[in-house]
Amino acid sequence: MMLLYEGKAKKVFKTEDPEVLRIEYKDEVTAGNGARRDFMEGKGRLNNLISSDIFKYLEKNGVKSHFIERISDTEQTVKPLGIIPLEVTVRNRAAGSIVRRLGFKKGDEFKPPLVEFYYKEDALDDPILTDDHVLKLGLATKAEIGELKAAALKVNKVLIRMMDMMGMELADFKVEFGRDNEGNILLADEISPDTCRIWDAETDENFDKDVYRNSTGSLIDTYTKFYEKMEAVK
Amino acid sequence: MMLLYEGKAKKVFKTEDPEVLRIEYKDEVTAGNGARRDFMEGKGRLNNLISSDIFKYLEKNGVKSHFIERISDTEQTVKPLGIIPLEVTVRNRAAGSIVRRLGFKKGDEFKPPLVEFYYKEDALDDPILTDDHVLKLGLATKAEIGELKAAALKVNKVLIRMMDMMGMELADFKVEFGRDNEGNILLADEISPDTCRIWDAETDENFDKDVYRNSTGSLIDTYTKFYEKMEAVK
Repeated sequence: MMLLYEGKAKKVFKTEDPEVLRIEYKDEVTAGNGARRDFMEGKGRLNNLISSDIFKYLEKNGVKSHFIERISDTEQTVKPLGIIPLEVTVRNRAAGSIVRRLGFKKGDEFKPPLVEFYYKEDALDDPILTDDHVLKLGLATKAEIGELKAAALKVNKVLIRMMDMMGMELADFKVEFGRDNEGNILLADEISPDTCRIWDAETDENFDKDVYRNSTGSLIDTYTKFYEKMEAVK
Repeated sequence: MMLLYEGKAKKVFKTEDPEVLRIEYKDEVTAGNGARRDFMEGKGRLNNLISSDIFKYLEKNGVKSHFIERISDTEQTVKPLGIIPLEVTVRNRAAGSIVRRLGFKKGDEFKPPLVEFYYKEDALDDPILTDDHVLKLGLATKAEIGELKAAALKVNKVLIRMMDMMGMELADFKVEFGRDNEGNILLADEISPDTCRIWDAETDENFDKDVYRNSTGSLIDTYTKFYEKMEAVK
């Protein structure tokens, strides 16, 4: 089947059904907008398992997404969407770029959570956008901006509850959204330790890609542990 | 009298009256957040003359500021304010950082004008902030954010009209604000070709610091011409 798109961690294929796409998760991990890149056997499987189960869990809790079903260890089917080129980030705790950019201390609490938009545009290095920039760039309407923020905060609420049961804290995450044929906004892309910062509630140990970014542990072991803990509470 | 603060282009002194500060404009020009720095005889005088007259013109048109009066060629008195560490930028046309950061084309029109906040924090290189960042950093309340935007847009309206009479177009500018003892927000700092992008309405020739940033002409000649045109329409 035709390859539609190949990203850093996934390939997207057409299927015979125009309403269904097939996503294949790759055994690759990158950091720094692709500046670092490694092959890791089993990573595609873990991300596919975790993201599938998270999207199912979100669906059960009222969050609509592109996810249809997991069809193999490394593949899932999804609805085709017109992807909105925004990374919608929700922060409960300060970590990563917001510490470097704005001088917050790692761990600073954001209550209510902070929602940010980043422009998915590699050539510009994914710059942060204000709501007005989103409007001026024609990426979403004012009403859609409200919808995106509300949906991201809803995802946050559901994931915080799930991770709390796992003894973990959700520091931040990024999601993407797309529009279906009727213009409905649905959650898209993936949610996994690649796209979240997850800290052990007691020890602050990372259960996310920071173990790779900061070379502090085995990514495969970390994701496996996360998946096992998630399966135990589901 | 005691020097309170020395910036790149100005010195601020206390006076005998606690309700009055004296500002002395320096013959210095910088670019790139201080990376380039030059001495230019007569620059302090021009900025002081221009900014004084612009603040008087704004006052006549209903914009309240810290400005009291010009007391010499290079000095003016102002009210002491608690400066809000934000550069409030208004853009009518794309130029400078927004072209580099977000991929707009130089000259792209913003209608309505785009208002942005930048955090005045040299160590962080003045990063752009969303409204939520301003709240989380405790720099202004939600109501004050609305006030700051409205005040900046009012300044924009008045300056556009003035520059239109001069045959010039206001592409963008930045302003700063502060709070007086009663918590009223007043326009502060300066407004001059140092803080605006001003284009000849016919030829697009710059009447602003871009002649220095881009080494395309004499800053002193440019500012002198701007001042003469401004005096002619006042």
